Amino acid sequence: MVVVMNPGAPQAQLDAVVARIESAGAQAFVSRGLARTIIGVIGEPSLRTELNLSGMPGVSTVLQVSAPYKLVSSQAQAERSTVWVGPEGRAVPIGPGTFTLVAGPCAVESALQTLGAARLAAGAGATLLRGGAYKPRTSPLSFQGMGEDALKILADVREATGLYVVSEVIDPADVDLVASYADMILIGATNMQNFALLDSVGRRGKPVMLKRGMQATVDEWLLAAEYVAQRGNCQIVLCERGIRTFETATKATLDLSAIPLVQRLSHLPVVVDPTHCAGRRDLIVPLARAAIAAGADGLLVDVHPDPENALVDGPQALAGAELRELASAVRQLPPLMGRLPAQPCGQMASQTLS
Amino acid sequence: MVVVMNPGAPQAQLDAVVARIESAGAQAFVSRGLARTIIGVIGEPSLRTELNLSGMPGVSTVLQVSAPYKLVSSQAQAERSTVWVGPEGRAVPIGPGTFTLVAGPCAVESALQTLGAARLAAGAGATLLRGGAYKPRTSPLSFQGMGEDALKILADVREATGLYVVSEVIDPADVDLVASYADMILIGATNMQNFALLDSVGRRGKPVMLKRGMQATVDEWLLAAEYVAQRGNCQIVLCERGIRTFETATKATLDLSAIPLVQRLSHLPVVVDPTHCAGRRDLIVPLARAAIAAGADGLLVDVHPDPENALVDGPQALAGAELRELASAVRQLPPLMGRLPAQPCGQMASQTLS
Amino acid sequence: MVVVMNPGAPQAQLDAVVARIESAGAQAFVSRGLARTIIGVIGEPSLRTELNLSGMPGVSTVLQVSAPYKLVSSQAQAERSTVWVGPEGRAVPIGPGTFTLVAGPCAVESALQTLGAARLAAGAGATLLRGGAYKPRTSPLSFQGMGEDALKILADVREATGLYVVSEVIDPADVDLVASYADMILIGATNMQNFALLDSVGRRGKPVMLKRGMQATVDEWLLAAEYVAQRGNCQIVLCERGIRTFETATKATLDLSAIPLVQRLSHLPVVVDPTHCAGRRDLIVPLARAAIAAGADGLLVDVHPDPENALVDGPQALAGAELRELASAVRQLPPLMGRLPAQPCGQMASQTLS
Amino acid sequence: MVVVMNPGAPQAQLDAVVARIESAGAQAFVSRGLARTIIGVIGEPSLRTELNLSGMPGVSTVLQVSAPYKLVSSQAQAERSTVWVGPEGRAVPIGPGTFTLVAGPCAVESALQTLGAARLAAGAGATLLRGGAYKPRTSPLSFQGMGEDALKILADVREATGLYVVSEVIDPADVDLVASYADMILIGATNMQNFALLDSVGRRGKPVMLKRGMQATVDEWLLAAEYVAQRGNCQIVLCERGIRTFETATKATLDLSAIPLVQRLSHLPVVVDPTHCAGRRDLIVPLARAAIAAGADGLLVDVHPDPENALVDGPQALAGAELRELASAVRQLPPLMGRLPAQPCGQMASQTLS
Repeated sequence: MVVVMNPGAPQAQLDAVVARIESAGAQAFVSRGLARTIIGVIGEPSLRTELNLSGMPGVSTVLQVSAPYKLVSSQAQAERSTVWVGPEGRAVPIGPGTFTLVAGPCAVESALQTLGAARLAAGAGATLLRGGAYKPRTSPLSFQGMGEDALKILADVREATGLYVVSEVIDPADVDLVASYADMILIGATNMQNFALLDSVGRRGKPVMLKRGMQATVDEWLLAAEYVAQRGNCQIVLCERGIRTFETATKATLDLSAIPLVQRLSHLPVVVDPTHCAGRRDLIVPLARAAIAAGADGLLVDVHPDPENALVDGPQALAGAELRELASAVRQLPPLMGRLPAQPCGQMASQTLS
Repeated sequence: MVVVMNPGAPQAQLDAVVARIESAGAQAFVSRGLARTIIGVIGEPSLRTELNLSGMPGVSTVLQVSAPYKLVSSQAQAERSTVWVGPEGRAVPIGPGTFTLVAGPCAVESALQTLGAARLAAGAGATLLRGGAYKPRTSPLSFQGMGEDALKILADVREATGLYVVSEVIDPADVDLVASYADMILIGATNMQNFALLDSVGRRGKPVMLKRGMQATVDEWLLAAEYVAQRGNCQIVLCERGIRTFETATKATLDLSAIPLVQRLSHLPVVVDPTHCAGRRDLIVPLARAAIAAGADGLLVDVHPDPENALVDGPQALAGAELRELASAVRQLPPLMGRLPAQPCGQMASQTLS
Repeated sequence: MVVVMNPGAPQAQLDAVVARIESAGAQAFVSRGLARTIIGVIGEPSLRTELNLSGMPGVSTVLQVSAPYKLVSSQAQAERSTVWVGPEGRAVPIGPGTFTLVAGPCAVESALQTLGAARLAAGAGATLLRGGAYKPRTSPLSFQGMGEDALKILADVREATGLYVVSEVIDPADVDLVASYADMILIGATNMQNFALLDSVGRRGKPVMLKRGMQATVDEWLLAAEYVAQRGNCQIVLCERGIRTFETATKATLDLSAIPLVQRLSHLPVVVDPTHCAGRRDLIVPLARAAIAAGADGLLVDVHPDPENALVDGPQALAGAELRELASAVRQLPPLMGRLPAQPCGQMASQTLS
Repeated sequence: MVVVMNPGAPQAQLDAVVARIESAGAQAFVSRGLARTIIGVIGEPSLRTELNLSGMPGVSTVLQVSAPYKLVSSQAQAERSTVWVGPEGRAVPIGPGTFTLVAGPCAVESALQTLGAARLAAGAGATLLRGGAYKPRTSPLSFQGMGEDALKILADVREATGLYVVSEVIDPADVDLVASYADMILIGATNMQNFALLDSVGRRGKPVMLKRGMQATVDEWLLAAEYVAQRGNCQIVLCERGIRTFETATKATLDLSAIPLVQRLSHLPVVVDPTHCAGRRDLIVPLARAAIAAGADGLLVDVHPDPENALVDGPQALAGAELRELASAVRQLPPLMGRLPAQPCGQMASQTLS
């Protein structure tokens, strides 16, 4: 932390700031200049105290210099992590050296639709199946998901296809239920700072995919991951899905600079969801390609066997020609980035985990 | 809804769009121009169907023309609502014709601190006491609130001062507990789209203050209110507290145009929290004055008897000279806007409710 | 400036940074902590050198601690400035203690329309007349202004009404021409970082109104003013007109926190244009009231005698009932803020300048 | 255009809107629903009239349905354009089927530095040399460029290396001068809506690279291009360089969805500048890779033989290992996107233009 004093702040104000820093058990290093004095603060103040330095007389600004997150930081662990999804011995990796496609319907609507989507997903190279049982919808009039019935369908489709299940939870009270069916829990963008949910998911100890909030800085995203990690669960995969900007031609602006950035700031894997930010099908494959080339550890996309009759986000679900293009990109580009090509589940396990 | 076709879209594509609209029980009005054809869609499609028109071949854009919210809309009720907080007969109004100051500590830290803050609040003209028992904090290392102990303190301070209590809830499982102590439930900005929480608060039927999310459009804010209203609870007060923009000189950009705007779009009362967007004490009073002049139905501010030792957001809490300035603005400006001046609780009740 | 080194950066990297700082004639103060070392940099590096410290090995971040502007800073002059518009002895002030209304048509369309607008403006309390001769339009198909013919009309209307003229320039080559007719030059939002124009206007030495760019931080706005001031022209009035955000219900988000903020950071007067950010007539008066209450030194609004036939921005021009409401706000609120009420030009001059 | 009336708007208001539409020579198609009436407007109103429909009584919203740009639209020309830079017969293409690297120093500082940078650029596969003679700098204290001396150096380096020159102009008065030395004129982000400059560059008829403003929507960007095209110059290459968002970890957020989007909306080529949005060297190559994979027609990057002593933006200039990585990406990825690999100038011309 660095405290910048106002120009001409009197000695008494400086002394008061130094005293407050030292009373919290930290050290203050004072650098006096002609125009201003700055104070370097070294040492962690105790957890439950805010120093409130920025409100003290004579203080111009307080600048943070250390990353506010610890466990998820690349300083805590220099080597990038791999998160394993699925039962031990047959789990699917998300992390450096591999490339993982997570695909499936935005919402589970029926067994048939989910199975159809899962087969499309597997055909395109997916090893994990996404499917929503609880949908956070902007409008209370929209379809909110089938709940536990959807989770049962997902479990059945896992049996039939070998794809492990990623499913979203939106209520802390449902974490155990979702975790009993799914192999990985998804925390959606609107819930990135739902701290009760982060707490509950953190304590449950299942792999987690944490989407970035549309309003969240990279620091806040990593702090949300830190909540989960602090509860003892470090099996966290970050998912960039676009931030909210003034541009309305797309639903959100995919921030691909966040991929190399979080790979430098944190050891956690990071995947990209190009579906929901594009808001139109014809932009998804170019953005998926860009995500792979930016270094993402995987992709999350919507597929649907009949997008025109989808109950949620049909215009963004891939099928047909666009899905074939995606499959081709997922085969072709990851090897150029030093990653094993994505392959149907059984094969991948045997090749990459032996 | 208006569907805009691509220039030169063939008749078959147009027919398919019309067929889909009509199959959902709505009517399609086709206007053919030289360059483009547009289709007006009249009639509400059924709740659980998405028409997915934007993904159909030949469709350029789909434009919404009706407000997506219903119960909270000014079309549902032309007259602006008043929300009453507190026990019947002695409740405090928030709405047109009055001006309500809600003040208190960001977080309850002790009985003494809360009582001190409440007395400062009442002295400045507050009739409602804010005080956090559960704090949604960006970092897991920050003080997270005292929980039920804080709620007990708030109830005691209500006894001592006559100020009714507004307190935040962040977990749907805590709604009943908070509602058993507080007179009004606060939903914070990070939880505006926490749909499980909206559902739970909506079912509980206690007055609610709903803060706008930092990333939320006015439409999304009103849709969040619609969730609560749909569960049968229309005692909703909106609270503007700043949106996230590129400007970093303040923590958020207070959007005061939202005040007259939501007062035209909705019948719900709307108050302003100038504290957390300013991020520095010296901007709060000018923003509070601006909020009153923009037509707000009330203000929400942090006060603290000892801001320099506050555990949460001390640099933004008012005390001393700034609080006196705020009190003066709250006495002086609302009458010019056709509102009764805020007054200490007992008096206000006797004057305004007789 | 503060340089934050990476955790564990070796001594050689630290030495290199210190050497570079000292070679530019500045001083380096090193504070060593357990985890990190930070270096305070004191003394201005020479103008034509960039230190490029942020690209050096071992450097984590470089933080600016001084305001990057000098002449327009409140550190250069503690007392807030007044800018005088119009001929000496009869000029109109913009600054602390007074409140100035600038009103008129967005674009000059004819002598009759401009005279009509000017009379409406004067009736509402304006002492300065805005009127565009050169319009920066987003589309090349829109009306671009009447050029010098408009300037002649403005000069005639000044004769007829006593209102001094504020008019926009968009090409550095036109600065002399506009300055020969107008009493104050307006630099629009799209030109805030048109450095050739800032240079030309700075050298010309006429009072300037500098609108904030829709993408500009407060710091960048003040740096744009610094360009003008550096060329010898300190007669600068800032104008807040809304910044671009994700909210599309209004054309831009008026940032009223910028008013008290720039009044603390700078000595320059600051006015508010509520017209173009609202994008709809019914939000303008509430925003105008809020601007006065936030402490603005004046307002800039569009008035038009026949808004429905305006060639530019008719839906935002005030007339009739809304204009009367504005006039009432401009009479009523500034005195509460310690400012002389705005009055028709002759009277104001006699009262405030004697 | 679609006009949406207020619910319950009386017939007289509807009639007035229809009358105004028809008086401007357009056609009105009325669709009446239970709740609302909407009016489709077909036919272009004349250029110098604004219909001002949005301010008329009873009007709720006016929605644009046609692209506001014409000449640069993909409706004007279905096939994507190629822009040729350099003398006829030996010119370098930017457009579909090829991939063009533009590289060089942000600012020309000396002949030696420029030659060094040009050689690095050519070695990395560049066929065009960027180099600034006039620099738009946020602060008036920063280095503003060497002006005509820089242009002479660039012309000499073109002789020595065969790389054609791209150089920025910031004052309309300098367009002829810059065009007499450079092969392509660059319009920077701060000048995207400098309409006097667009006008001057449009009339000059030299190939133009038009950067997107940090606050500009895709529509506004294309309208800026339309200004240039309307003056008779269609040799326009768009350049995405990041938009301003709330995220401060990078200087701007690169919007790669804009690449496929403008390639659908417009026939103009589009390149990406990953340098200035990253703000740090280690993010540039991942973003460059992503840009290629998203389908960009080329890249614009800063290279400098001695970044640590650069006068402008040294921390973002590529050299050494990062430049080698970029060169490798520029060789490897474009062929996968169906583009000829970038090659040193002479060879490329012989291969691609025969």
